[in-house]
Amino acid sequence: MEPLACKPIMSLRFRDRVRPEDADIVYSIVASTGFFSRDEEFMAASLVTERIERGPECGYQFLFAENAEKDGGVVLGYTCFGPISCTAGRFDLYWIAVAEEFRGLGIGRELLAATEHRIRFQGGARIYAETSSRDQYTPTRAFYEHTGFRKEAVLPDYYAPGDDNVFYAKDLPPLHSER
Amino acid sequence: MEPLACKPIMSLRFRDRVRPEDADIVYSIVASTGFFSRDEEFMAASLVTERIERGPECGYQFLFAENAEKDGGVVLGYTCFGPISCTAGRFDLYWIAVAEEFRGLGIGRELLAATEHRIRFQGGARIYAETSSRDQYTPTRAFYEHTGFRKEAVLPDYYAPGDDNVFYAKDLPPLHSER
Repeated sequence: MEPLACKPIMSLRFRDRVRPEDADIVYSIVASTGFFSRDEEFMAASLVTERIERGPECGYQFLFAENAEKDGGVVLGYTCFGPISCTAGRFDLYWIAVAEEFRGLGIGRELLAATEHRIRFQGGARIYAETSSRDQYTPTRAFYEHTGFRKEAVLPDYYAPGDDNVFYAKDLPPLHSER
Repeated sequence: MEPLACKPIMSLRFRDRVRPEDADIVYSIVASTGFFSRDEEFMAASLVTERIERGPECGYQFLFAENAEKDGGVVLGYTCFGPISCTAGRFDLYWIAVAEEFRGLGIGRELLAATEHRIRFQGGARIYAETSSRDQYTPTRAFYEHTGFRKEAVLPDYYAPGDDNVFYAKDLPPLHSER
């Protein structure tokens, strides 16, 4: 029997297209988690605005997980990711967040899997995710460690004194290798 | 007696203001070094264009070293740098390059020192520089090691298989601590 946390109790629909109103939605989701600073909340939302203003060339792609049972398309969580310039198929997972009231339902895992599929479709071979070493981010690091990422490097005191940057990496098989 | 390489044989003038024609100048400088791939050369130039189009909010600052003896302001080298979002005074040195014909004259060191001054003026406390582990970049790594950077972390196979990302870091004293 699989743990309950891996089975979303609602069915999800994924949306790639970015809309101007997603800036507010992203802000609300990121703020709801209580994980991030005010600066980080604004930064997350500003990436949506940048994407709307500059188009795909800005390098930021988004994937929104919506509740498929609602017509209105309530956004439950999202990822922001993109190719790392001048690398051979390396992608950055800039953001992954699920609204606080929907955490623990496996939505993060489904979002990550759907994001990985899109990265592989673009020829991506590896994903990097960066997070903080602070206690507050223990669930974030556990999430990466339980979804196939490995701890790859640490930059001590990166965010601030005592707050390291922990780099996680996950290798992705080529899409055509799937049966 | 100081080594000759530390004393530029010409006097330098620094320019912070970015002009549209700097995109071509940056491209030429970066291409002249023979260090970078075609993609990297275009990327370096595109940061100038982004700065011109989006203004300071894009996060990229530039410093150009010009030959002070020439009226026309021949650009000998440049840096591109900026604050790392959501960190406590950490800056990224995205690019530092000196035109091939002017290498070995200490211009890189002067450029770095002038860049550090600008970073400290903005409250910056640390600079990060990333470079490749490939043999081709041995002089680049030596430059960082001789200018006060320490090797801080390595991301294996980051750029491509066999081509690691080496992170260097340098701590900067606060500006007011200077006599």
